[in-house]
Amino acid sequence: MAKKSKPAKRKVATRTPAKKAGKPKTKAPTKASVDQMLKKAYEPARLAMVYHPFYEGKIEITPKCVVRDFNDFAIWYTPGVAEPCKAINKNKELSYVHTNRWNTVGVISDGTRVLGLGDIGPEAAMPVMEGKSLLFKYLGGVDAFPLCLGTKDPEEFIKTVKYLQPSLGGINLEDISQPKCFYILKRLREECEIPVWHDDQQGTGTIVSAGAINAAKMVGKKPSQMKAAFIGAGAANIAISRIMQLSGFKWKNMVMCDSKGALHPDREDIKAEFREKLFMCEHSNKKGVVGTPADAMKGADIVVAASKPGPGTLKPDWIKGMADDAIVFATANPIPEIWPWEAKEAGAKIVATGRSDFPNQVNNSLGFPGIFRGTLDVKAKTISDTMCLAAVLEIAKTAEDNGLRDDYIVPSMDEWEVFPREAVAVGLAAINEGLAREKHSRKELYDKAESVIRRARNQTKYLMKGKYILPPPKV
Amino acid sequence: MAKKSKPAKRKVATRTPAKKAGKPKTKAPTKASVDQMLKKAYEPARLAMVYHPFYEGKIEITPKCVVRDFNDFAIWYTPGVAEPCKAINKNKELSYVHTNRWNTVGVISDGTRVLGLGDIGPEAAMPVMEGKSLLFKYLGGVDAFPLCLGTKDPEEFIKTVKYLQPSLGGINLEDISQPKCFYILKRLREECEIPVWHDDQQGTGTIVSAGAINAAKMVGKKPSQMKAAFIGAGAANIAISRIMQLSGFKWKNMVMCDSKGALHPDREDIKAEFREKLFMCEHSNKKGVVGTPADAMKGADIVVAASKPGPGTLKPDWIKGMADDAIVFATANPIPEIWPWEAKEAGAKIVATGRSDFPNQVNNSLGFPGIFRGTLDVKAKTISDTMCLAAVLEIAKTAEDNGLRDDYIVPSMDEWEVFPREAVAVGLAAINEGLAREKHSRKELYDKAESVIRRARNQTKYLMKGKYILPPPKV
Repeated sequence: MAKKSKPAKRKVATRTPAKKAGKPKTKAPTKASVDQMLKKAYEPARLAMVYHPFYEGKIEITPKCVVRDFNDFAIWYTPGVAEPCKAINKNKELSYVHTNRWNTVGVISDGTRVLGLGDIGPEAAMPVMEGKSLLFKYLGGVDAFPLCLGTKDPEEFIKTVKYLQPSLGGINLEDISQPKCFYILKRLREECEIPVWHDDQQGTGTIVSAGAINAAKMVGKKPSQMKAAFIGAGAANIAISRIMQLSGFKWKNMVMCDSKGALHPDREDIKAEFREKLFMCEHSNKKGVVGTPADAMKGADIVVAASKPGPGTLKPDWIKGMADDAIVFATANPIPEIWPWEAKEAGAKIVATGRSDFPNQVNNSLGFPGIFRGTLDVKAKTISDTMCLAAVLEIAKTAEDNGLRDDYIVPSMDEWEVFPREAVAVGLAAINEGLAREKHSRKELYDKAESVIRRARNQTKYLMKGKYILPPPKV
Repeated sequence: MAKKSKPAKRKVATRTPAKKAGKPKTKAPTKASVDQMLKKAYEPARLAMVYHPFYEGKIEITPKCVVRDFNDFAIWYTPGVAEPCKAINKNKELSYVHTNRWNTVGVISDGTRVLGLGDIGPEAAMPVMEGKSLLFKYLGGVDAFPLCLGTKDPEEFIKTVKYLQPSLGGINLEDISQPKCFYILKRLREECEIPVWHDDQQGTGTIVSAGAINAAKMVGKKPSQMKAAFIGAGAANIAISRIMQLSGFKWKNMVMCDSKGALHPDREDIKAEFREKLFMCEHSNKKGVVGTPADAMKGADIVVAASKPGPGTLKPDWIKGMADDAIVFATANPIPEIWPWEAKEAGAKIVATGRSDFPNQVNNSLGFPGIFRGTLDVKAKTISDTMCLAAVLEIAKTAEDNGLRDDYIVPSMDEWEVFPREAVAVGLAAINEGLAREKHSRKELYDKAESVIRRARNQTKYLMKGKYILPPPKV
């Protein structure tokens, strides 16, 4: 990818100086440091190709019940195991008591839209789904395993996922192409007895919405009155707009662009199966903006780009056309649609990206581990929009409690109190909505989530200490 | 269950006295000790109902790659993970290198014939499948997870299993009712790209066959000339007869009984879908035995019962009618079809059961962990009959190398060299047949299997030591 941006002096100062030492800054870098940043963007790829074959997998199965000697197998397997089987046969709900189902999530994909790589197939999607399972355990204490299905037919996919339910406490869909991902999620949410979540939709939407409402606080604007532009009309931005709407933003104030420009009621090129885009054509863009991203962003208070990796996908001129105190979410990986310092130079007040080496990293991993933790801990039947909104508000509040700044609108990954806090918020929302199979107090929910997550993190350390997880090879 | 047998003095002495101290003996017990044995048979059931809800699952997911800090997630997840994805997209086989697929087995059931409990459904089958996954790891170092499918339709089941292939290195079918289990296994073995095994068929057949050929050695008879009676015509005995045939026994010398008596060519009550029973009607029983188990066992050198739990299912009188040096396999759990001392008193020279507190425990767990270990270690495309036979012979040879006795015809569970030995035998058979994706020497195969299994056992101990697996509750 060619480097298109020219670094320049920093013009826009952050209002509140960063309080924490060592926090990354959005400063205009030298040419050399931009080169280094580009190189750094590809460093994980280089390490990945050395580490993946070294570890031969990111997760494994380990016993969680006692095995003192072979006699214990008479309890865990035949003949003893017949008793819990009979108990569950009488009352299916007891599968949450006698097995690990209460903590088990399937990470399910058909490999049709993996990262930015497109339809690379179920085998090639496996490294991502294993990685997701790793994050589920380490951040949320959830036992997740990858299931990449060898069918692209949405009906077959739906049926297969439904057949898998008896073994699972929840379902995390991942990396499914649009428009079928919307249909698949809708059908499965309606027809499954267990919670179904599509992280590329709801997860991304949750984090960006949390960041957006905190950014709004920073610039002193009300979400309900803010104009929002969306660059890219894929599953991520469609879902982000939906959850931002749940969080207080208004359809009428949104303008979304696909590769052909703004979505509006006269766009006749959009096929019927793209129902969500058609919905946007009808419900958003009440001012009837027609044209390019530049037109959509004119006067916007916030722009959310979920589009091609940059730099150069978002133009500084477009940002110059935005309202004062503009907010820019440039979420593409590994290079954001515009470098943060370019966006700032063009007038943006707050910039968020998907990268951990810039401030304001909007990262799905802040969401799903805590959201599933809370969902599983009350044995909720679904993850409702209300539960999702509860997570948005709690993520936002966690950052607020730590002191919002222009360069700190969402918690960072190592502030791990965010996960049990989300779990509590989501669990209580499920209880209030009558969606929980179990009721617990706020304190019980927090203690449970905190101890399960702490155990997972300590267990990983302990396995490293005992060399059951080896140190990485030298590179 | 009423106690039907009367304990009496022991008449038949074992030829070779047990050499090891502490080895259980088949001696005629007192009334009190029979009562105790009945009680003992149900003790695991009692503990199972306390331990299962305490541990809330028998397996969990743990990281097996390094997590030093959150920066490592850029390697294991986006953006770094894209590289192994791209590599697998170019060459699917690399999924065995970059993910845990090489060591992953799905334990898949529809819950239609769980243990002796019948069709209790997929949720209620979960404790068994979790237990199986535990055994897979502890005994074979294999990462297995339970998938209980919510469909009873064999075509839907087959399709679903095929869709699951991209995530799996192998498939272990379990607890599926007959006759569909035969059809499902046949179709999946033909149509899958990865090995498929039905443990209730091939696994049981493997262990009983290993025991049968060692028992034949003990009584100085040749399998090809031995008359064999089978009491019960379920999936287990159908498969046992098939693998005994592979091991040297002859169809013509076998007589199998279902609940209506001996299978023979004039049995017109057997429906067309019971193809395997019809096969037995046509190919076995060349003397044309008609009648009851007593008739089938008349003059038999060996009887294999896989029928209703006893005692009293096999009658002493029937054993009295067998040939000299009769061999009795009474495999029902938790109580064998006849108590060992009763069988001995009636003239049996060698008796095997499924119980660990009697000598000669024939137990599937001696088979599948080593067989899958070897299959996975050479990345075999299937588990052929030749590989299965290699396991039979190696299990038999392991016991022979330790010194066969009337009360020691198969290895015991704690002689765990049996698992790497099987792995080597199965792996080499796959290589010789051209079914292996990878070729390794005998020594390489042994070292790999031994180290993977040793690691699994040590890891379990280590997790207990660190209290990640808690001591069991007091009962």
